[in-house]
Formats: sequence, structure tokens, C-alpha cells
Amino acid sequence: MGELPPQVQNMVAQLQQIQQQLQAVMAQKMQVEALLKEASEALEEVQNAPEDAPIFKVAGSVLVKVDKEKIIKELQEKKETYDVRIKTLQRQEERLKDRLNELQKKLQSMLSPQAG
Amino acid sequence: MGELPPQVQNMVAQLQQIQQQLQAVMAQKMQVEALLKEASEALEEVQNAPEDAPIFKVAGSVLVKVDKEKIIKELQEKKETYDVRIKTLQRQEERLKDRLNELQKKLQSMLSPQAG
Amino acid sequence: MGELPPQVQNMVAQLQQIQQQLQAVMAQKMQVEALLKEASEALEEVQNAPEDAPIFKVAGSVLVKVDKEKIIKELQEKKETYDVRIKTLQRQEERLKDRLNELQKKLQSMLSPQAG
Amino acid sequence: MGELPPQVQNMVAQLQQIQQQLQAVMAQKMQVEALLKEASEALEEVQNAPEDAPIFKVAGSVLVKVDKEKIIKELQEKKETYDVRIKTLQRQEERLKDRLNELQKKLQSMLSPQAG
Repeated sequence: MGELPPQVQNMVAQLQQIQQQLQAVMAQKMQVEALLKEASEALEEVQNAPEDAPIFKVAGSVLVKVDKEKIIKELQEKKETYDVRIKTLQRQEERLKDRLNELQKKLQSMLSPQAG
Repeated sequence: MGELPPQVQNMVAQLQQIQQQLQAVMAQKMQVEALLKEASEALEEVQNAPEDAPIFKVAGSVLVKVDKEKIIKELQEKKETYDVRIKTLQRQEERLKDRLNELQKKLQSMLSPQAG
Repeated sequence: MGELPPQVQNMVAQLQQIQQQLQAVMAQKMQVEALLKEASEALEEVQNAPEDAPIFKVAGSVLVKVDKEKIIKELQEKKETYDVRIKTLQRQEERLKDRLNELQKKLQSMLSPQAG
Repeated sequence: MGELPPQVQNMVAQLQQIQQQLQAVMAQKMQVEALLKEASEALEEVQNAPEDAPIFKVAGSVLVKVDKEKIIKELQEKKETYDVRIKTLQRQEERLKDRLNELQKKLQSMLSPQAG
């Protein structure tokens, strides 16, 4: 890359930075989606349980018996929190993808000025 | 590889693709086999438990007490699902191995045409 | 690095060793902080549970019903142990960072003696 | 290594193979030692529990209530199995280390025949 003009080198560095940010955001989104799936499955299982079925909550290395209504509310709140975080990460992902496309177009027009 | 004829290069590329697909299929099979083993062990434990032994099901961060007959049916269905997936993956594995052998033979005959 | 004087090479080797030690200490600190967080969450959950709520402790592949007062004491002791270990690791981290700064300054003054 | 005599090359290859086997055996030993520690902790917890404390066993995604005497016996048998496997792995480790030392001495005497 030593032969590229400084302006192009700078743009390539920006591109790489944005790609790294995009990868980090997508990895985070996948993690939160897994947590959402887990909470959804737990909620479904609790809701499908008979009214008087004992339910325990895992908290680290301890299990505590919980009230059915309380754990349903807790899991629903968890799901909403995860939903909000996923939407935030999705917006960040889209913005980064837009900037990536923009930069790639600019870079292409700089590298083939005759086509500009 | 720059010195190889395009036809051979193309075949080597195909070989590598199939090897990657084969590795992916074998990794998936190992994962489903682990899930099958886990479900089998759970089922065995449940079936060997005294008739009135309380049984809980893990669902994410929550444990819910379940009926013995219901969880046996659920684990048996899980096992069948895993069995079907393993058989599908095994068929894919065999087909990929056949194609790999075929391509390797073709490649050998192309690289030593005097032996053909 | 073959062109550097032995004294400088020796100092660079020391720097790298300290950086590795620092990374190991920081990784250990993060692990104990995760254990502390887990114990804190378990303790909070237990303390917020109704007085008569059954509580189980996870011990390997076994769950054992525990007395509320006993598990609270156990989790508090765990937290204190983790706290002490984190403080020890923090002191180690600071001492290593100090030595790193010191060595980096010495190295800079050796590499630019005219500035000394 | 192209300049080394075939006999030496062959010995170096043997050395590398034994080192890999040694690493595999040591990794296995560490895994079984972790399982032994887990079983020991579970056994201790069960033995220290009050006589009438309910105990559950984790089997995959299911928890089954178990009899105290039965789970103690099961954990003791597990511990014995792990103990035997660790001793077998230890013997393998020692034999591989002996062969490694032997080969390294032979290799050294071959590379410095004047010292022989």
C-alpha cells in the first residue's frame, strides 16, 4: 500500500475501522438474540406449566423458588430489554453498512478517476 | 499453483470447497450426536426414577416442575428429531465423500495422463 | 533487533515479560470479578426471596436443598474471598504498570541519549 | 532441516510426535482431574447435607430427585472411575516423558559425536 496516495491510504484505513466496528456490532447482536431466545423459551415453558407447578430461578450457583406471576413479569421485562438492545444494535449496523457502502463508492471513484 | 493448467486449478478449487463442506457437515453431526447423547441420558435417568420422584425441566434460567409422562414423551420426540437430523447429515457426508473420491481420481488421472 | 546494543535488547525483553505478566494479572482479575458478580447476584436473589422459599445449591451435577441463613453466610464469605483476591490482583496490576512506565522511560532515554 | 542427515531428521520427527502425544495425554489428565474435583465437591456437599434435605441430579436438561444413599454411591463410583483414568494417564505421561528424555539424549550425542 506504500504506493497509494495518502488520501486513498487514509480512506482504506477508515474502511477497515468501520468493518471492525460492524463486526463487533453484529457479534453483540447475535449474543443478545441468543439471550432473547433463551428468555422466550423460559417464558413459554413457564406459561405452559400447570398453575401450581413449582418454578425455580437460576441465580449463579443457587436456585430459588419463585412465584409464577413474578417470574413471568421478570422474563417479559427481560425480553423487552433485549428487544430494545437488538433494535439499537440493528440501527447501528445499518448506519455502519451505509457508511461502508459510501466509502467503498468514493474509494472506487478515486481509484478509477477516468470513470468519475 | 500458477503453473497448473486452468482445468486442474479449477478442480483443485472444487476439491477444497467439498472438503470444507464435508468438515462443516461432520462438525454439525458431532454437535447433534452430543445433543442426542444428552437427551438419551436424561431419558434414561427419568425412566429409572421412582414413580413419584419430582422432575424439573431446565428452560434457560428457569426450572419448571414437569409431569413424568410428559417429559418422557418430550425427550423421546427430541431423540427422534436428532436421529433424523443425524441420518440426513450422514447421507450428506457420504455423498460429499463420494464426490471427493471421484474428483481426486479425476485429478490424479489428469496429472499423470500417461497412466490413463 | 539484532542491531540494538545488548543493554537495549535486554530491556526490551524485560518490557515484554512485564507486559505478559500484566495481561495475565488483568485476565485473572476479570475472571474473579465475574465470580464476584455471580455471587452478588445469587446473594441478592436469596435475600429477596420470601422467608420460606426453598433454595438449592448447585454442586457439580447435583443440587442440594440448603438453609437460607446458611447459604447467605456462604455467599457472603465467597464475596469477601473474591474481594480480597481482586484487591491483591489490583495491587499487582498497579505495580506492574509502574514498572512498565519506568522501563519505557529508561528505554526512551537510552534510545535518544541526546535528549537526556 | 534439509541439511540434517536422514537419521537425525527421523529422530526429530519422532521427538515431535512424542511431544504431541504427551500434550494430548496431559490435556486429557487435566480434564479428568476437573471432573474428579467436581464429583468430589458434589459428594462433599451431599454428605454434609441434613439427612432429610432433598437432592436432585442434573441429567442433561432435566433434574431428577434422587435418594441420598443412591447418589452418594453413584458419586463415589464416579470418583473411583476418574481416579483409575487419572492413574492410567499418569503412567502414559511418565512413559512418554522417559522416551522423550531418551530420544533427546540420543539426538544430542548424534549432533555432537565428538563428545560421545
